[in-house]
Amino acid sequence: MENFNEKTVTSETLYCGKIIELRVDEVQLPDGKLAKRELVKHPGAVAVIAITDEGKLVLVEQFRKALERTIVEIPAGKIEPNEDPKQTAIRELEEETGYRANEFTYIQSFSTSPGFADEVIHLYLAKSLEKVENPAAGDEDEFINLHECTISEAEEMMNDGRIYDAKTAFAVLYVKQLTIK
Amino acid sequence: MENFNEKTVTSETLYCGKIIELRVDEVQLPDGKLAKRELVKHPGAVAVIAITDEGKLVLVEQFRKALERTIVEIPAGKIEPNEDPKQTAIRELEEETGYRANEFTYIQSFSTSPGFADEVIHLYLAKSLEKVENPAAGDEDEFINLHECTISEAEEMMNDGRIYDAKTAFAVLYVKQLTIK
Repeated sequence: MENFNEKTVTSETLYCGKIIELRVDEVQLPDGKLAKRELVKHPGAVAVIAITDEGKLVLVEQFRKALERTIVEIPAGKIEPNEDPKQTAIRELEEETGYRANEFTYIQSFSTSPGFADEVIHLYLAKSLEKVENPAAGDEDEFINLHECTISEAEEMMNDGRIYDAKTAFAVLYVKQLTIK
Repeated sequence: MENFNEKTVTSETLYCGKIIELRVDEVQLPDGKLAKRELVKHPGAVAVIAITDEGKLVLVEQFRKALERTIVEIPAGKIEPNEDPKQTAIRELEEETGYRANEFTYIQSFSTSPGFADEVIHLYLAKSLEKVENPAAGDEDEFINLHECTISEAEEMMNDGRIYDAKTAFAVLYVKQLTIK
């Protein structure tokens, strides 16, 4: 296996926002040449595949400014400073859906856009759900419609584009695979 | 269904790079309040689930500066100006793997990070592969190791973190599902 690491020559932070940072690095390539890398730093996020006792997938519908449209996703949210990802996942599930899970297990983590961003999503499976009487309030700039769908309804939403993001597309295949097993 | 659209009040482009742009919008929320949205513009990308006649998945290993590590991914690349996504997919498959496909079909598209980026990946399935004698050269700042793996090898790579990005995680489940059918 060849080592293709890129050595940082210079690194400049151009923007520090509330959620993301933008950095431009000059790197030395394996052949010695120089190249620029435009990099977005993100605190990381969690997402929850929550399945009700009736076998339905819990989904949230919200407007996404980056896409200028409303999409249907699994519950998710970014990790707050010093927060353990599992706690983020439990918190986001309650805030966005009003559910608490008696079974909460880690599935896997993945990078969303390795070409330019360091965002990693940690994915959890939540089962044996219970509605919380007074769920914790979510972010005040978040407006959400809640859905509970069968897997074939979720597949239909993936086909017609209402489900339109990578983590939720993965979730639909993941749940389908669980039911085949 | 409630309409939770966010109206743009102001929009400021803070960075225009080679690949991404950074924009900060002030938006009006459904309750009338104002909020900031940090948005990354990206030209969009394609990714190819390429399966050899032996049923192996074609994978590329490369260093990703954003993650500061090497990961194993399905072949992918960004869409050039005025390029049709299918042409991008055919081009990237040849540049990164040396393969041309006699069967090339569109699977679906998904947003990678709807919370802050407009990047969409268009996913294709490539079968009936043939090695090209003199494949087109790829980007000069791209250094790649090629792999061809069985599905169980790919699953193992997903479990140990060598496969670590959303599109490839989706691809592994997708191919597994194809073989179950």
